[in-house]
Amino acid sequence: MREVRELGEFRLIERLARMLPSAPPVIESIGDDCAVVRANDKVLLLTSDLFIEGVHFNCETLHPEEIGWKAAAAAISDIAAMGGAALFSLVSLACPPGTRVSFVEQLYQGMANVFSQYGGVIVGGDMSRSSDGITIDVTVVGEVRGTRFLRRRGALPGDLLAITGYPGLSAAGLDAIQRGLHEPELTQRHRWPRPRLREAQWMCQRLEIHAMLDTSDGLVQDAAHLAAASDLGVNIERDKLPVSGVLARHCEQTGLDIGHLMLTGGEDYELAFAMGVDNSEATLKALHNEFRTVVTVVGQFTDEWTGVRVDNEPYPQGGYDHFLTSTD
Amino acid sequence: MREVRELGEFRLIERLARMLPSAPPVIESIGDDCAVVRANDKVLLLTSDLFIEGVHFNCETLHPEEIGWKAAAAAISDIAAMGGAALFSLVSLACPPGTRVSFVEQLYQGMANVFSQYGGVIVGGDMSRSSDGITIDVTVVGEVRGTRFLRRRGALPGDLLAITGYPGLSAAGLDAIQRGLHEPELTQRHRWPRPRLREAQWMCQRLEIHAMLDTSDGLVQDAAHLAAASDLGVNIERDKLPVSGVLARHCEQTGLDIGHLMLTGGEDYELAFAMGVDNSEATLKALHNEFRTVVTVVGQFTDEWTGVRVDNEPYPQGGYDHFLTSTD
Repeated sequence: MREVRELGEFRLIERLARMLPSAPPVIESIGDDCAVVRANDKVLLLTSDLFIEGVHFNCETLHPEEIGWKAAAAAISDIAAMGGAALFSLVSLACPPGTRVSFVEQLYQGMANVFSQYGGVIVGGDMSRSSDGITIDVTVVGEVRGTRFLRRRGALPGDLLAITGYPGLSAAGLDAIQRGLHEPELTQRHRWPRPRLREAQWMCQRLEIHAMLDTSDGLVQDAAHLAAASDLGVNIERDKLPVSGVLARHCEQTGLDIGHLMLTGGEDYELAFAMGVDNSEATLKALHNEFRTVVTVVGQFTDEWTGVRVDNEPYPQGGYDHFLTSTD
Repeated sequence: MREVRELGEFRLIERLARMLPSAPPVIESIGDDCAVVRANDKVLLLTSDLFIEGVHFNCETLHPEEIGWKAAAAAISDIAAMGGAALFSLVSLACPPGTRVSFVEQLYQGMANVFSQYGGVIVGGDMSRSSDGITIDVTVVGEVRGTRFLRRRGALPGDLLAITGYPGLSAAGLDAIQRGLHEPELTQRHRWPRPRLREAQWMCQRLEIHAMLDTSDGLVQDAAHLAAASDLGVNIERDKLPVSGVLARHCEQTGLDIGHLMLTGGEDYELAFAMGVDNSEATLKALHNEFRTVVTVVGQFTDEWTGVRVDNEPYPQGGYDHFLTSTD
């Protein structure tokens, strides 16, 4: 095992997590959406999110304000995944010396807009030239409000897997942008993702949810993360996936495989969570009453095997891994 | 003003700071070594430091463990600059898929060693492939201990400018590495910088110091930052700069301009601070007694002009600016 592309992002993170020391004020360390740490009477959530030109975005398809929005929204979504609230942000930016000043200002404006809508304020960071391309790292310091936060782990055998929203919209939006199609309902999802911060806070305090994460790598892979955190398996039922009308029309027009898109399309920044069967109806009803948000049961956890299956079969495409899926 | 190279790093940061909103729990925002924020009964220090291949380091001259050490030491030094203590760290790493696993492990080991020596623990971060080269962003969450922290601003007209240690050693160390010379006293300074965390904490609580920062961009420029933060000027006296024997010998052998090296060499991670004339002797004596650290008065602040001068003349080379000094 000599190069990170042989090991993959997630196994590399596991190796580093085993190698690095911990300390008593650390409640959750490497491996969840945020680290959870104690600072006197406050429980803080800490998360960083890289957003790199040519990997996470490119400047031909996104306006600088959209790039900033997406970078900050992805970081805020990690805070949402734990049911927390954002407090402060640090932004590190590396860019070539020939970058336009107006580009940088619009980038920060996009990030500032996320924080003004979702809470939190940019208080610092770092700036450097890069030899090539733009790299943004958004760190958010958040906090747990109330008595509880949600982890990735905690799903029980037999728990149902539920998701907010319609999977695949962001990926379809990117496809529409690349094809130059006018599909605002899709492209908006890609350009201006809306993290489920308030829903997650409310769910965390009011509902009996066992485990949660935000969907960023594609449903199959995100479900796999959720299952793996509890040493369980999860089966997704293709027929249960909520199909958005606009997505169906787009796939019909373009010939895209709608099932594959819903199972593997990334950057939705929706919530995926595990809940007991008994209170599932009450949970879904409460969520719908409070937010009018579509929430759908799409699968079930099991202790009979591990990993992720779709209609009880292993799914060929595992989703996004930064090192494995590279074509270098 | 169309490109960041025309504006420069520091004026760009000023523009962004004016543009971005603030909020009541923010005590110090963009512009100091750390942001200072209130989280209930704790005052937190937040800082991020980029460390980029080809800009801050290259893999031919440094071992991966040294790269990790330097990246984390630079971030810890920002906490030192405020007199604080490190608590938690997030590390974001972008690297090509062909990067060796052992390289990444050694990199994190180098960072972990800094935190185990200086306090703090790596609790998370992010990981991504990059299209080219390695980018590290080290975020540190620290805290103010006791009742006080030190800012960049606060120097008074007539205050003395003092520095710990010998300026220019790290730059001379890099030069020795590049020339392939065996000068361990110099090269160690470049490979394993030792942030003045304990000294700074002690100074902050026990001594009457008006303003402080850590020296990373070269003495002339760091002094200019300190002066600018208080709308003052500062004059550095060349004759007062403390000359290390090993630096003198290296410059003699290589023909390097020792004065220029001491005035502009970066990455020393020493402290530069402003103190009143009246208690300066007591301050220096107390510091020497406690730490046996060389501390030298090298200049004086004035309200008669702004900027930085050396022997009462403007100094041609202003030091390091990420965008202005680029050769792209």
